[in-house]
Formats: sequence, structure tokens, C-alpha cells
Amino acid sequence: MDSRTGLPVVGMVGGGQLARMTHQASIALGQSLRVLALTPEDGAALVAADVRYGDHTDLAALRTFAKGCDVVTFDHEHVPNEHVQALATEGVAVYPGAEALLYAQDKRAMRERLSALAPMPAWQPVTLPEDVVEFGDRVGWPVVLKAARGGYDGRGVWVVSDAREAAEQTALLIEGGTELIVEERVALRRELAVQVARSPFGQVAAYPVVETVQRDGICVEVLAPAPALPEALALRAQQLAIDIANALGVVGMLAVELFEVDAVGPRTGRASEVDAVGPRTGQASEVDAVGPRAGGVDGAGETGGGPRLVVNELAMRPHNSGHWTIEGARTSQFEQHLRAVLDYPMGDTALTAPAVAMANVLGGPEGGMSIDERLHHLFAEDPGVKVHLYGKQVRPGRKIGHVTVLGDDMDEVRARAERAARWLREGK
Amino acid sequence: MDSRTGLPVVGMVGGGQLARMTHQASIALGQSLRVLALTPEDGAALVAADVRYGDHTDLAALRTFAKGCDVVTFDHEHVPNEHVQALATEGVAVYPGAEALLYAQDKRAMRERLSALAPMPAWQPVTLPEDVVEFGDRVGWPVVLKAARGGYDGRGVWVVSDAREAAEQTALLIEGGTELIVEERVALRRELAVQVARSPFGQVAAYPVVETVQRDGICVEVLAPAPALPEALALRAQQLAIDIANALGVVGMLAVELFEVDAVGPRTGRASEVDAVGPRTGQASEVDAVGPRAGGVDGAGETGGGPRLVVNELAMRPHNSGHWTIEGARTSQFEQHLRAVLDYPMGDTALTAPAVAMANVLGGPEGGMSIDERLHHLFAEDPGVKVHLYGKQVRPGRKIGHVTVLGDDMDEVRARAERAARWLREGK
Repeated sequence: MDSRTGLPVVGMVGGGQLARMTHQASIALGQSLRVLALTPEDGAALVAADVRYGDHTDLAALRTFAKGCDVVTFDHEHVPNEHVQALATEGVAVYPGAEALLYAQDKRAMRERLSALAPMPAWQPVTLPEDVVEFGDRVGWPVVLKAARGGYDGRGVWVVSDAREAAEQTALLIEGGTELIVEERVALRRELAVQVARSPFGQVAAYPVVETVQRDGICVEVLAPAPALPEALALRAQQLAIDIANALGVVGMLAVELFEVDAVGPRTGRASEVDAVGPRTGQASEVDAVGPRAGGVDGAGETGGGPRLVVNELAMRPHNSGHWTIEGARTSQFEQHLRAVLDYPMGDTALTAPAVAMANVLGGPEGGMSIDERLHHLFAEDPGVKVHLYGKQVRPGRKIGHVTVLGDDMDEVRARAERAARWLREGK
Repeated sequence: MDSRTGLPVVGMVGGGQLARMTHQASIALGQSLRVLALTPEDGAALVAADVRYGDHTDLAALRTFAKGCDVVTFDHEHVPNEHVQALATEGVAVYPGAEALLYAQDKRAMRERLSALAPMPAWQPVTLPEDVVEFGDRVGWPVVLKAARGGYDGRGVWVVSDAREAAEQTALLIEGGTELIVEERVALRRELAVQVARSPFGQVAAYPVVETVQRDGICVEVLAPAPALPEALALRAQQLAIDIANALGVVGMLAVELFEVDAVGPRTGRASEVDAVGPRTGQASEVDAVGPRAGGVDGAGETGGGPRLVVNELAMRPHNSGHWTIEGARTSQFEQHLRAVLDYPMGDTALTAPAVAMANVLGGPEGGMSIDERLHHLFAEDPGVKVHLYGKQVRPGRKIGHVTVLGDDMDEVRARAERAARWLREGK
């Protein structure tokens, strides 16, 4: 409790843009986010009043940081799970808790835990290179090799074309100490995401389902709501996320990344035949008839034989696929995360406009106009675009901010968001 | 320029809630507001990363503060005008500049300067108690006595009923060293306000006209757009604010508070007869036929014989009557103020919903639920209300925050905003 304001103190471990935007949201709630940053140049450290310094892998630093916080939460998944457990044991309110967080930290644990809960791509843990070869020969090439821990933005994910490549790359990665899983390469129509927030009391609030557009493994655009998504599939996606949040006991924001795939098709058909990928993961194939089931729920059958959903990844914090909520939803994911970890009742998740497009701003090539000059030009060109910069030095390919455009027509707001992001990246 | 981000540094003198909310807006623009606060308990000092301490009346403190700022601007009007001039002379970019700011600092100077520009209530400077008696006898009692400098939220304003009271109160105030003006008490229909932002380049952006609801001289609610305001009158109000911003060379946000009054009526009719209130102020009566003129502009004549507008006050900064813009306009007044003082092109001022209601949260009686408990209950009751708390200790009658509700129906959003503000004030 902050004695000056009579309001709780939330501490966030990690000083990146998520902490930066959470601090922004905390101001409206009368609070001031306490941030554990690595350096004074961290995005959140540049803007927050209450910044402590320390390494998120150092338990002593985490303990010191937690003192005087009513709740501790996270800007990323990189705090060792045993440290989260230790803090909780010592009486710190840590949200999400270690048991839930594990499934955002470890893809293997997540796949195992969700097997009975949610449809997923066919997958298998990897112990030896032969495991990948055998898996690929069975489900079809190429396959996707993933590091069980630590991957993000396309890092820690490798598409492997054939048995020879699989054997070589897997051997190298195992030698390097990387724990791996292998997944079928899903023939996806597109990627979707759904955000939910859950409080310790158990209230869950779901946001509209969005489409996420990826390029080179990095999310470049988010469209809210996901264009032309059948109502039954949208409801199914929200229900999946709610079920996962409840089953895992998530507290705070949960982002569920989904693949929209054909219900029946050469690759997914093959995937569902794989009912012997292992005693636990085999269950995945038993729940992959999502389309027809979802269609059955509302009786409309819209999705019968049509698209179905499989779970790709989980994140238990505000997430890039939810940045559109700052202007595009009545309650931003950052405010919602704070409300959830504080056990406040959840805020309204309704869209504020019929069409919302978010585009990430990546650092462009060196030289040319300064970011300040680019802002001038962008604001002159489009007075309606909302810009969020993260206070980062511009480096090629680095996410340095995002832009959001709201309106009535998705094609129009998407084109404007793309143009704005390109302007900030390339100055043209 | 902040070497870490390549973006400009804006310094704001004063650490109240306006600086607090401006800091919030600065984060999105990649910046971090530099704040000159009086104490670490100031609302902005609780949340900003870059806080300096010093008195805004101390030129040395202002000089030190200005070093390294690309632009200096203000959270309030209490910086001595000569200090603002001194900074500008020394090469600091100060917005609004001293020449413009004067008219937000000194009601007498404002009334004199605007006399040829804008319709105003009949008024007169006060040197002796007899001036007030003579004025009241001429325009009718009661009259309004105002301190030329330093008033806000109903302070520095006295309604005087008759000649005896006028003589007594004026004598006392003059003895106390208060410089005074006296104004007719306008028979107003309601109060309106209009926000505009102006950049050094000269671009001006106007927000929709709002109704401000006052109680005991304090603004308690703002309704955007002003309900049932004839289009011609709304355009006239925006044009007035644009003209004033241009004529005074304002840079940053300008809030123009207006009275909506009957074009023809016993009191306003009398006011317009007052053509001998002084060589300069007499001009006011020459421009008070606003209704018919505005009606003439669009040829509709809607306001002919209907309501007209007179200017009450000016503020040259983000203003309470513009807090609704945080959620209710595409660009908040706080972002717009930053864009203006940085000479960025202005952002879109369009409403984000058909009806927006803002209600101020005042501190309630001692005891009862804590503000944290009240928030819980409010969020449970209305998940759609947006709360802004200023980090202030609760004291009866003190503005400790505001709430905003958006929707399709003004009556509904107004009722919800009122209920939310009452909840936070009274816990019931």
C-alpha cells in the first residue's frame, strides 16, 4: 500500500515496453508501477518514477524488489520458475503464479498440460535426432523444431525440410543444450489470437478475437476483430482461452495464439491420424474436431467442415497481439492486467470502433531522417494515427513502437496503419 | 533532445494532475515529461521519471529547470510573467509565451485585449469601492467581483448583491491588496467550453464544443458534445476560440470558457446598453450581437434571436473541461498540448463516441471505505467507466480525480458518470 495515496503498489519484473505501457495505465488507476529494470535505458525505466535495478534471475534481487509491493507481476517469462515459487512460499502475492507461469515458460509442459483441454498441432518431445526423423516420416515433412524455453519473435523456431536436415540440426541443437520439441507444420489459413484476463476471484473477461499477421516469424499487424471470422469460431476461440485460463489458474492477462486451419485437408487430415505420438500427446488428436463441435454448439453449423482452431502459444502478460486495446477497446490490456492482479473487477472489453488495425514499427536501415522528423511527417500525413514509441534506440529489425488506427472499414484502417509503420521505419 | 531516444525533452512547470496526465501522454510519443514539482507528493512527481524540485516563482530554479529542455510549458498560470519573459530572452523556447500567457494570468488584461475580438459580459476595472457601486447601479444588481489574478475553482469570485455589500467587500479586498474587476452577472442558460490547440507554425485544431456543469463555482461535469447546441452556435464558438488563439499567439492548448445567454433578455439587453464602461471595455458592447451574426454566417439564422455566446475565462494549458478527450477524442488534449508545443502537426480532434460525459471526483467526508475499496465496488457496478485518479490524499471537496463514460445516449452516460463520481466521493 502506498501510504501517500492509499492505493496498492504493483511491482513488475522487467523494464521493457510492456512495463512501460503498464505504467502508463497504472497512472489512471492512481498508482505508479514499481519496475525492476536491468538498466536506466530500459523502456520503462525511462518513464516510471519507482524503478529498482536488478537481474530477474537473481532471487536476492527479486526478494528485495518484492518488499513493499502488494503484488508482483511480470513483463516477460524469463524469471526462473523456482524463484517465483520461492517468492510465493515467502508470502509474496505473485501473479501469475509459478504453477500457471510454467506453461508460458515451457512449451513442452504446455503441450502436455493442454493435451486434454485444447486442440493442438501434432507434436512430440525430442530426446534424440532420430525422434525428429521418425516424427517427420510419420506426419510429413517439413516439421517445426522448437526450443522448449526462451524463444520469442521467431527465435527458437526452426522449420526442417527433410530427414537429413532434421538429423543434422537436431544433433547440433541438442549438443548446444537446447531442450526441443517437434511439431507438425500446420497448413494454416491464418493466425488468430485471443486475450482474456482472469482475477484471483476467478472472474474472466475475454476480448474480441483478432487476426495476427506474421512476417519472418514476427507479428507485424493485428486486426481487430479478426475479419470474416464466423461467430461460432470466435466464440469457440474465446471459450478455449477461458477454459485454459481457468484450468491453469492464470491470474492476469493470458494471450492464446491460435492457428486457423482447414477441418479436413491433406496435412491436417494427416495430423489427426497421428494418434500414437506418445501417451500424453496422443490425446491432441482426440479433440481436433473443433469445427464441427463449435458448429454444433450454436446449431448453425457454420464451421462444420470449415475452419478449426489449434493452439500455438500462450503468454501470461500483456502481449503484442493486444496492443490494439489501448485505443481499440474500452479497457486496455494493460489496465486489465493491473485490475486482474489486484483482484479488481474486470473492465469492459468491447471494441471502441468497428475496425481496429495495429502495426508494429520496426527499426529501419541506418541513416535518413531522425525518428523525430519521421513523426512530424507522419502526423502531417495522417492526423488520426495513434503512435506508441518505446524509447528504444533504433536498430534494424528491432520493435521500437507500434501504431494503431481506428475506423469503420478494415481495409482502410489496415492500409493506414501499414503506411504509418512504414513511414516510421523507412521514412518514406 | 534526449540522447537515449533521439526525441525532444518537454519540461512542464508544476507537478499537479495536468502534468501527471501530460506525462502519461508523453510516454506514447516516446518521451518522458520533465516536471518541476514542489514536493515528492505532487501528483506528477509520483509517476514521472524525470522530476526536478523548485519553486515556480524562483527565476533561478526556472533557469536550472529549463537547461536541457527543448521546450518549457506549464501545468498552471502561476509562473510570474516576467520570469517567462526572462527565460524567452535567454533563448528558452517557452510555450505559451509571456505575451499570450498574460491573458490567462490577468483577467483585466484579458478583458481589455479581447474587447475588440470577442463578446464578453459588461465589465469594468475597479480602483475604488465607488466604481463597483456605480457599475452595479448602472448594469443592475447583483454584480460579480473578480480578483484579476490567481483565482480558480470558484476562488477569487464574489457575487455582490447590492450597493452596501459592494462598498464593504470591495473596500476590504482593496485593502487586502487584491486587484479587482467587476462584471455584470450574466443571466446564463448554461456554460460551454471549447478547446483549441495552436502550434508555433500556426496550425490550429478545434475540439467539439462541450457543456460544463458547475456547482458552487466548481466544474463538476462536462458533456461532449454540448447537448442540443445549434450547429451555427457550435461553429461560432470554435471560430471564437480559433480567433483568440491566433490573435494572442497562443501556443499549446487554449480553453475558452463561454456563457450561453439569451440574445434578448432583461439582463443581457441591459448589458449591451452599457456602452460607456470605459474607453477600452466599451467596445465589448459593440460585438455582442453574436447570435444574429452567427446565424448570418450559414444563412440558416437558427440562432437569430436565440442564444448567443460571451467569453468568461481563458486557460492556456490542458484544462479540466478537456479531460473527456483522453477517451472521448481521437487525440487527447494532453497529447495535443505536447504536439503543439513541439510544433508537430495537430492530431485528429473527432469524438470517439456520440456521447461522452466526464465527472470530477471530489474528496468526500472523512471515514467510511478507503478509496481502494470504493474502486472495487465501482468497477463491479460499472465495468465501462474509465477512472482517473490523481494520487492525491483525499480531503473534503478536493478534486482527486475524474471519471469518463462513453456511449450512444447522453442521458445514460451522464447518469453513469454522476453515479461513478458519487461512489468514489461518498462510497454509496
